Amino acid sequence: MTRTTLLDAAHEAAAASTATRVAVSTVIFSLRRSPDGRASVVLPLVTRTRDPHQGQWALPGGWLDITESLDAAAARTLAETTGLAPSYLEQLYAFGAVDRSPTRVISIVYWALVREDESRSASPDHDQENVAWFDASALPALAFDHNEIVEYALWRLRNKVGYSRVAHGLLADEFTLAELREVYEAILGRRLDPANFRRQVENAGNLVPTDSFRTGSHRPARLYRYNQDAELAERGPLTVRQ
Amino acid sequence: MTRTTLLDAAHEAAAASTATRVAVSTVIFSLRRSPDGRASVVLPLVTRTRDPHQGQWALPGGWLDITESLDAAAARTLAETTGLAPSYLEQLYAFGAVDRSPTRVISIVYWALVREDESRSASPDHDQENVAWFDASALPALAFDHNEIVEYALWRLRNKVGYSRVAHGLLADEFTLAELREVYEAILGRRLDPANFRRQVENAGNLVPTDSFRTGSHRPARLYRYNQDAELAERGPLTVRQ
Repeated sequence: MTRTTLLDAAHEAAAASTATRVAVSTVIFSLRRSPDGRASVVLPLVTRTRDPHQGQWALPGGWLDITESLDAAAARTLAETTGLAPSYLEQLYAFGAVDRSPTRVISIVYWALVREDESRSASPDHDQENVAWFDASALPALAFDHNEIVEYALWRLRNKVGYSRVAHGLLADEFTLAELREVYEAILGRRLDPANFRRQVENAGNLVPTDSFRTGSHRPARLYRYNQDAELAERGPLTVRQ
Repeated sequence: MTRTTLLDAAHEAAAASTATRVAVSTVIFSLRRSPDGRASVVLPLVTRTRDPHQGQWALPGGWLDITESLDAAAARTLAETTGLAPSYLEQLYAFGAVDRSPTRVISIVYWALVREDESRSASPDHDQENVAWFDASALPALAFDHNEIVEYALWRLRNKVGYSRVAHGLLADEFTLAELREVYEAILGRRLDPANFRRQVENAGNLVPTDSFRTGSHRPARLYRYNQDAELAERGPLTVRQ
């Protein structure tokens, strides 16, 4: 090794220890139905393969590439973890407490919704060896401040389901009112009265009834879809731009 | 200059050109009354004293210090610009488009509300030479992507005034319903019917009537204050933590 190369290495090490680095992580929510038929909110976690926190579960993510936008980095880490494109992807928050990592790391965190059927379809060229899905209400101790991040993402999800069409990201394009209520119940963590729920969503005027019905073991139930025009307006001026 | 110092300088220059850097900027909203008595939303801008965009107006901000949390950096740049502590300060969004600056810069943007009387009181030890307040609806062409950032902050403000107590950040602790309506009118950019407005805010149940009245040229008007308990619950798990 020449003297210059040694100096290079020394300088790189020094720069790495004093610089602020930017990571992007994603909280990916989906639904799972337990054997008793009740739905709950789940999210995928990955095992850390090196220090700090080697062997612990953590949110999927990675370093921001210098040629990559924040949105692109979030979509990339999401695809690498689940092999899926999300039905909903939005920036959540930038976490930057000084002591959240041994070196200074700012994590730009996104949150995403993936439909249940999509989250179950395994991608053939996708290695899921160190990925597992966890019930959001029963997480182990995660690496870094990731438990706090998930807690905040759940708070945002619960809040947002009240005044927006965010539940759409967990449903098929057409759904029954019972299926929509199930999503709300899973997110809010409590049972809702079916008659009250039907009245409220019908009054909100965001749903469009279709001419189709879900048939099966119960009596046929009408299928609805969300009003797409209202949904596009909702995310504001950042929807298309970044 | 020794050979080692030269190498240091070269390495630092190389590191600066390839690294991602983190800046913190703040959109600070307040109200100003024009001579005709109508209120409008205003914000302070600073002249850039060096390239890129030297001489153009920009949002107040600066580089994140490695020992400083994001919230602390936002509060610091806000104090340096206006000499004030804000009545409301919240993270807005992380802007990270690859081409938003000649080098790669991620800007974590905060938004703040400052009460009108506070924003007019000049801080004696505070140099405001290159700071000026602008009407939010008539901004010049700003440096970087700062026009887009202000547009997004205004969208968030308009949205948030509908479902939260955010107007409080622009009002004194006690206020009349006419003063509250003025804040809504300035934010939404349109006149509101006084009788409808009174009915809506009374039904929302967030206001506590006091035993005091505002007297003057008009007939006495009752003073109200916001319900503090409800306000604390609103900002969720991040209120205290970071």
